[in-house]
Order: sequence, then C-alpha cells, then structure tokens
Amino acid sequence: MRLSRFFLPLLRETPSEAQIVSHRLMLRAGMIRQEAAGIYAWLPLGFRVLKKIEQIVREEMNRAGAIEILMPTLQPSDLWKETGRYDAYGPEMLRIRDRHDRELLYGPTNEDMVTEIFRAYVKSYKALPLNLYHTQWKFRDEVRPRFGVMRGREFLMKDAYSFDLDAAGARRSYNRMYVAYLRAFSRMGLKTIPMRAETGPIGGDLSHEFIVLAETGESGVFCHRDLLDMPVPDETVDFDGDLEPIVRQRTELYAATEDVHDAARFEREVPEDKRVSARGIEVGQVFYFGTKYSVPMKALVTGPDGKDVPVEGGSYGIGVSRLVGAIIEASHDDAGIIWPAAVAPFDIALINLKSGDAKTDAACDDLYAKLTAAGKDVLYDDTNERPGAKFAGMDLIGLPTQIVIGPHGLEKGLVEVKSRATGAKEEMSLEAALKRLATS
Amino acid sequence: MRLSRFFLPLLRETPSEAQIVSHRLMLRAGMIRQEAAGIYAWLPLGFRVLKKIEQIVREEMNRAGAIEILMPTLQPSDLWKETGRYDAYGPEMLRIRDRHDRELLYGPTNEDMVTEIFRAYVKSYKALPLNLYHTQWKFRDEVRPRFGVMRGREFLMKDAYSFDLDAAGARRSYNRMYVAYLRAFSRMGLKTIPMRAETGPIGGDLSHEFIVLAETGESGVFCHRDLLDMPVPDETVDFDGDLEPIVRQRTELYAATEDVHDAARFEREVPEDKRVSARGIEVGQVFYFGTKYSVPMKALVTGPDGKDVPVEGGSYGIGVSRLVGAIIEASHDDAGIIWPAAVAPFDIALINLKSGDAKTDAACDDLYAKLTAAGKDVLYDDTNERPGAKFAGMDLIGLPTQIVIGPHGLEKGLVEVKSRATGAKEEMSLEAALKRLATS
Repeated sequence: MRLSRFFLPLLRETPSEAQIVSHRLMLRAGMIRQEAAGIYAWLPLGFRVLKKIEQIVREEMNRAGAIEILMPTLQPSDLWKETGRYDAYGPEMLRIRDRHDRELLYGPTNEDMVTEIFRAYVKSYKALPLNLYHTQWKFRDEVRPRFGVMRGREFLMKDAYSFDLDAAGARRSYNRMYVAYLRAFSRMGLKTIPMRAETGPIGGDLSHEFIVLAETGESGVFCHRDLLDMPVPDETVDFDGDLEPIVRQRTELYAATEDVHDAARFEREVPEDKRVSARGIEVGQVFYFGTKYSVPMKALVTGPDGKDVPVEGGSYGIGVSRLVGAIIEASHDDAGIIWPAAVAPFDIALINLKSGDAKTDAACDDLYAKLTAAGKDVLYDDTNERPGAKFAGMDLIGLPTQIVIGPHGLEKGLVEVKSRATGAKEEMSLEAALKRLATS
Repeated sequence: MRLSRFFLPLLRETPSEAQIVSHRLMLRAGMIRQEAAGIYAWLPLGFRVLKKIEQIVREEMNRAGAIEILMPTLQPSDLWKETGRYDAYGPEMLRIRDRHDRELLYGPTNEDMVTEIFRAYVKSYKALPLNLYHTQWKFRDEVRPRFGVMRGREFLMKDAYSFDLDAAGARRSYNRMYVAYLRAFSRMGLKTIPMRAETGPIGGDLSHEFIVLAETGESGVFCHRDLLDMPVPDETVDFDGDLEPIVRQRTELYAATEDVHDAARFEREVPEDKRVSARGIEVGQVFYFGTKYSVPMKALVTGPDGKDVPVEGGSYGIGVSRLVGAIIEASHDDAGIIWPAAVAPFDIALINLKSGDAKTDAACDDLYAKLTAAGKDVLYDDTNERPGAKFAGMDLIGLPTQIVIGPHGLEKGLVEVKSRATGAKEEMSLEAALKRLATS
C-alpha cells in the first residue's frame, strides 16, 4: 500500500483524554476514533490489526473442532426471560424497543440464544460433542467506559459454546478451548496465564481467565512463577486426544485473580521465591456451567440409554477488540508500538527518503513491486514528508521491519534495514535486502 | 469438513412462513434461523456463503482503490441532527437510549458518521481522492420484514463513501465504484444491470441500482436487451484510467426501475424487439450526492487555489446478506440450491455410500485427505444415513461437484462424479476423479 493512497491520520499531540499507553498510541497512530463514549470507529491501520487477531482466533477455534456461525447483534428479550437473566443482568444490558414496541436488547453475550438454536435442532447424543462459535459485536453499557478499546461499550468478542452429554464430555470440551486459547494468544506474541476466576453473570463453578501481565492491568493477580515460562502446545497438538495433562500441568500450580485469591493458600503452596504478585489484563475467559441454561430452556438430548437429559454446557470468550489494546500494553516503547509479526498491520515499512528523485523512486518502486509479489504486505511511504517525520511515523505505527532507501545510500549501492523491536540497523545491497525481507 | 462433525440441520418439511424460494431453501438447507422478526442467526452453511460474498466485495473494493475501515453499529444522534436526518429518517430508524439517557441509534447507513471522520482529519485536496468503506451490520426497522434475508431488519451491508475536490473528481469516483460493482457481482455468478433509480433518503441527483433479473423480484424494471449480454471488465481494468467509456456504453441504453420509469421515452429509445420489461432484485446502489452532507457538517478541504470548499461526496452500498438470497433466487432448481463456484460454501461434496465398510471408508478418507491437501474445501458425508437421503441433502445444499463412492463401484475401480448444475454424471477411476477435482 502506498502511503499517498492510504488513510493514516497520525496525531502529533498526545490526546489528553487517554489515560493509558495503548489508548494514547492507538489514537496517535490513527487506529481508532471515538464516535460516542466507549464506541469507536476502526480506521484502516486499526482495522487491519483487528482482522489479523480475529483470523488467528478463528484458525485456532477451527483447529480445536469448533464450528463457526454468526448470531445477530440484537436479541429478543424472551430468550433472556426464559433463563431469568433479563432482570438479573442489570443496567449494563442495553434494552431497546422497536417500532412495534417489542423488547429487544443488544447482546452482551449469547448463552441464551445459542441454547435456543441448539434445542431447535439437536435431539440426540450422536450429534455431540458440538461447539458453535461466532465473532460478533457486543454491547455492555459500562457506567464509565474508559481506556479506549480496553473497556469500551461496543466491542468485538469471539464467543464459543460447547454442548456435551455429560460432565466428563464437557470437561474435555473445556480442555480443548483451554489449549486453543493458549495457542491463539501465543501466536499473537502474548504470554498468557490461565488463572482461576469468578464466574459472574455467566454462572457455573469452574472458570479460568487468561491473563496478560502488564503494569497497567485492571486487576491484581497472583501466580506461581513457573507458569510464566511454560511452553505452549505447538500445532501438532491432537485435539481429539487427551488434553488433561496439558491443562493439569498448569492448573496444579497456584494462579488466581484477586477476586478469588486465597493468600493463605498462595503462601502455603508457592515457595517464596516463586511467588508472583502482579497486575494483569484479562484477554479471554472460559466457563463450565453445566446445565444452568439447558434446564430452564429445556435443551435436552437423548442419551445412549434412551433417556433425555439436559445438555452440559460451557462458554468461552476472547476479547478480540480488547486484544488490540492489550498487545500494545505488552509491546511498545517510548517511540510507539512494536507489533508482534503475526498481528502487524503491514509486514514491512518502506521509506523513500527523497520522493521525486528519479533513481530513489525507481529503486523503491521496484522493491515495493517485488516484495508485494513475494506476498509481503508493505506500507510504502512515497510522500513528500521530511525524513525525520517519516522515521517517527513508522516508529509510532510499529511495523516489524523498516527499509530505508535514499540517494546517498544508493550511490554506494546500499539501503538500510532496521528492526523495530531491537532498533538494530544494518546496511546492505538492495538485492540482499530483497532476499532478507521476501523470505523472512 | 466431515459432516459427522459439522452442524448442518436440514429440514425435511418446507417451512410454511417462507413465501419465496430463497427463503424456503435457506431454511431447509440449514443456512439461517430466525431469532426475531427480520433478525437471523447464520448457521455454518449460510455463514460460509456470507463470508465468501463479503470477501469478493472486499477484493473488488480494494482493487478499485477503496480503503477498508469499520464503523460501529451504534451511532450518536448528534451527527444525524447536524445533517437534519434524525427527524427526517422516520420510524425505520431504531432509536435507543443508554443508561445515561443519551440518544443512540442503530446505524441504517453511515454518510453522517463517515463525514465526521473525514472532516476530523482531512483538510487538503492533496489527500483526495479518498474512498473509505466498511462491511458492517445495519438495522432498518421495516414495518413488515419478510422474504428472509432479502428484506430483513438486521442486515449486512458493504458501504463505501467517496470524497473528491470537485464534481469531475466525484464522477470518476462514481465510475470506479460502478465498474467495481459490475465485477463483484459477475464474480458471484450474477448478471446485474445498472438502472437509473431514485435516491430516497440518501439524497442526490444521480443514482444507479444494480439489478438481478428474477421473477420474484420486488420491483418492475425496464431496459434495453443489449444490456443483458454486455461483457464485464476483467481484472486488467485500470481503475486509475478513464472508466467513462465503460460506464457510458451502459448508461446510454435505457434502463430504469419502475420508480423512475418513463414509458414514453422507453418506447421512443428502445426498438420493440429490444424492450425488456421484467422484475428485478436490487443488490447494490450507487449515489452521487455532491455536498449534501459536507455543507451542513462543514467538511471542507483547501483546494490548490488556497480556498476552502465543501468536499464532493458519493456513497455506494452492496447488500451482502441480501445477496445470499438473491443468488439463490437466480440459481436453483426443484432439488435445491445450485451455487456458483465462487460463493459455494464448499467446493466438493464427497458422498460415502457405505460408511463402516472398510474399503469404502479407506477410499473416501484417502480422497478427502488428498483433495483437502490440494486446497479444496470438501464436505465429506461420512454419516450412516441411507444413500437416498445423502443424495437429496447434497442436491439441496447445492455444492458445485459431487463425488460418490460405494463398494460396488470400487470393485470395478470406479467412482461417480456429478455436476450439480447440469446433473451430468460420469464414472471414472479414483485417480481420474482426484486429478479432475484437485485441479478444477
């Protein structure tokens, strides 16, 4: 993409309303624009990151055997009355009346609706296990939306729902999501720790939050240090196999958010030099809630013994839009964002130091064409800005690799390649740069 | 995808509430489920088609130089008050109050919001032309939602917005979208005819609807027969070049929806044997509205002469969710849907005639693995259903190619390959079938 044809409205000033670094950087890098309190438009750079995160989550959901659907944003109130949540959910639920005065609501989550879909079609244990997921905009009417996309009102969530015949099957489904979450976050360059957590309005008695450690985290967290460096299962992990050892290896070590923290147990179970108490950002949560929804909604399946039983359920959420902020909280420096490669909005920043200079333009155009042909997403700064502004802009938006081409270097046959993460710069020939970047 | 692990709830009965064939077939094929009047959940099969259509539209928007963003579903009422549309839009707009009693609305379209984004960042003609688009859920509170996704209330629309310094530039932007629309619909297997149309609540004085001819179309349309067979520009079309000849070739022939139809002119301009009067389904509409939004919203740009002028705008919509229905209206038979290859939910139906038979299973499993490795999306019916039900199900969901493998054929070394569109069946060896299907 040529920057001259892109829409990248960088801000020089640090917006005063932004209290945390990810919010500041997202505004300065032209990723989002607030349209109402807690409601954002995603500008081109932010949109690209959002889509990359959504796609990684999708791939790992599919790998784990979940099936993608798409439920609507608006829901009829009837479903929520069946489960008793319509009154229980409180003022965070956005309640709406249509032109015929029928009650709708903007879905904050989808347990009720997906259970309705399930009971309409599935009658036999033979169709189980089943896991249906979607990635859709949700709304929670926070009293004080803040921290940009980290605590917005309209937000993008991936939510999956598992259905099993019995508790043992539900546990296997829970484990599949637990492992898929480890993999998805790891692919985004995030180190997450699953921690025991409260179940809140979703319900149930087993839940883990997936936590990214960050000083700006919203809640205190406590865990065993060994959890920080535990390897994540690679893509050969068998989701049809027994995942319990992978899950148990983690769950047998202490890890809890402050809501469920037990200080005495923490001190008893974790040696002093292994105790981590820090702050964390929740990027996902998994719940096992059994028959909480299937009993009131009469979502029954016939078992092998011919008897009808309420289906056993769990739900599994990932905050897709929140992750954009969480990744920045975990990966930035004073100059701006440092994107992990897998979620970077472009792979490469190509900086033309002297647009309008025939030789420099030709070298840049040629490299741009070749890198693009090699399947790389390149943001090519072909504008007339001065070099200092170009460098600062590219550091701010944080693409993994920068390549800088100017007339002086070209005279010596050299261009500069810079790693955004390390700041390391290297001079090399155009050919060497092409070879390095096209295959990296 | 193994059918035993997929979620494909086919209905044997024809649902009584469905009045048109696409609605009936989408319900029977397990593509959608109604959650409230005009509000649908997209089940796995329907979701796949929806995503394919969205992606084709995205590729053609990008090819034409439009830049993707994502605006929120909910909008503050202030923007609509600035343009005077808040009161003018009427009861089709879903109006909402949040917990602080602030007025929000579920966006039925985005001219107002995108103009707000534009004016916040763009001050100079140098940033033009600019075209920003998104694909987002919209809501229009129809009095009588009907015809399934063809006239739903919550629907997925791609809407693009162009910004230019002057009317001539705006016309070039209009032409780019006009040509991109021809290409996008053609890639989906649809023959569309752009017709002069009313501008309605979007406003302006130039507009074309892109119409698919179908007996079940919602409105009468009139056009010159030559428009039916006019070739669509291929992917070498230069969107930076002069597109006026492509557009003029069409616009100089009579084509109008009934709202703006001029019978006298039709008879004057079109020879009797070239007159087509038919019914049509609108799948897209393009508008040039000039300064209708930029004047009230003070979206000004400084021209080369240093003077500020209101930016010239147009908007361009494609009904992504509606297209799923429109394609079915245009492509089905008594047995079910016939998907054009580019939007089919899977490429190939693999039917195992005797699941549980070791040799048949082995042949099917092997072919499934090889076709998948070749990049084909295969729906593999590995269930215990009887053959008749498997054939009927696959005909109903309409994948382009079926391959049928059973023990009797395998004894002779033969499998059957069937084209869903023509019904033509051919026996061949497994190797020949693999070669044919992996490379088609």
